[in-house]
Amino acid sequence: MASATIITAAMLAIGDELLSGRTKDRNIGHLADTLFLAGIDLKEVRIVGDEEEMIVEALNALRGRYDYVFTSGGIGPTHDDITADAVARAFGVPCTHDPAAMELMAAMYARRGMEFNEARQRMARMPIGAKYIPNSVSTAPGFSIGNVHVMAGVPQVFVAMLEALLPTLRTGSPVLSRSIASPFGEGDIGTQLTAIQKAHPETSIGSYPRFDGTRFSTEIVIRSREQSTAEAAERDILAMIAEIAAAKAAT
Amino acid sequence: MASATIITAAMLAIGDELLSGRTKDRNIGHLADTLFLAGIDLKEVRIVGDEEEMIVEALNALRGRYDYVFTSGGIGPTHDDITADAVARAFGVPCTHDPAAMELMAAMYARRGMEFNEARQRMARMPIGAKYIPNSVSTAPGFSIGNVHVMAGVPQVFVAMLEALLPTLRTGSPVLSRSIASPFGEGDIGTQLTAIQKAHPETSIGSYPRFDGTRFSTEIVIRSREQSTAEAAERDILAMIAEIAAAKAAT
Repeated sequence: MASATIITAAMLAIGDELLSGRTKDRNIGHLADTLFLAGIDLKEVRIVGDEEEMIVEALNALRGRYDYVFTSGGIGPTHDDITADAVARAFGVPCTHDPAAMELMAAMYARRGMEFNEARQRMARMPIGAKYIPNSVSTAPGFSIGNVHVMAGVPQVFVAMLEALLPTLRTGSPVLSRSIASPFGEGDIGTQLTAIQKAHPETSIGSYPRFDGTRFSTEIVIRSREQSTAEAAERDILAMIAEIAAAKAAT
Repeated sequence: MASATIITAAMLAIGDELLSGRTKDRNIGHLADTLFLAGIDLKEVRIVGDEEEMIVEALNALRGRYDYVFTSGGIGPTHDDITADAVARAFGVPCTHDPAAMELMAAMYARRGMEFNEARQRMARMPIGAKYIPNSVSTAPGFSIGNVHVMAGVPQVFVAMLEALLPTLRTGSPVLSRSIASPFGEGDIGTQLTAIQKAHPETSIGSYPRFDGTRFSTEIVIRSREQSTAEAAERDILAMIAEIAAAKAAT
């Protein structure tokens, strides 16, 4: 059997509004879902404000460490949209109006009878050497440079850009995931679950507590790149739940 | 007038489930809201999986740079809850069962007639020198060590721990925030808004695009630690909106 292909990724979400609580991020969860299905391992997320120094530093840390970096936010037409400049600085290249993006956008604004003014032209700026990511919602594009993919913060636009980008990415072996609902809290299952994890080192077994206001229950998730190992762990977990249920019934 | 007190913070959210998309984080937004009201500036957020090396590295980067670090996740009773060990390693101290936490928890389980087993006792483990954070929901505590505050990932419990912790924190001068709804998209207002920001350097003016599926509008937010400067910027922004509206009405 061929060994699994592991592709790693990080996300950098950019925007003061995420840190002040004004906006609740929705792009991280969407990217996590999308990458999981594509077999790309999201390993780290960072959120920073609209500060060039912070963006450059985070970007350089992440792009050296992971196969892909995805960013959200800061590519609009206003003065606080500084992502394109920060990415250009991280790559050590100038940031200019991209001719292909200018053409796309000029045509769209002409069609709509709107002025393609200086603020709107800002949205065509990208680092030299970048390639634009189409935006089927509102035209103004994102861009890719090296292993960094720069997308909008508005969720509808982020979704559209990621959809356009996805077919161009290398994907890994998908991770199989099975979920088992345990009616017992982690305190009841923790000791035995530790032993089961040790017995199945090829799987990653996670346990996620749920709290309904009165009682804890647990969602147990087995992740593996091989079906047979996931199934073996699942059998042991189901046996554990049956055993605990029998013990509770007997008391 | 006394100069403003600036207190900075970072958050480290821990858990594979946040990176796989299985769980959509709710703690970051709650912490952001809470710190904003307390006048504490949240400057950076990181999300990492249940990997000791990653947790230690992120924690050491953040605790050296900000006044406070808040973590969520990984302090339950199962094998994948490794936050206490990772925090102990980051501080270079052993991780042991805390006597005060053991006492609290033993009393609670005795009251409820439940076994205080090995898995549950794991939740009393913390770095030597840590002080527990009360948990009014389900007893098993978080803990504080140095400038790091370690809390649960289950949102109800995170909220309860943060509430218990908040009165013990130093708070800064609150930031005044005023929000102005602009019926015009960022493309219409971008150029003038840049000039307004330049004219009011003591304020931070952000613009947040909204997209209703057809048209963009913008929420403009002025943040300042002084009322008078915020008001001056607000007057200029309202004048700008009136001017654009008049120009549109004339065409």
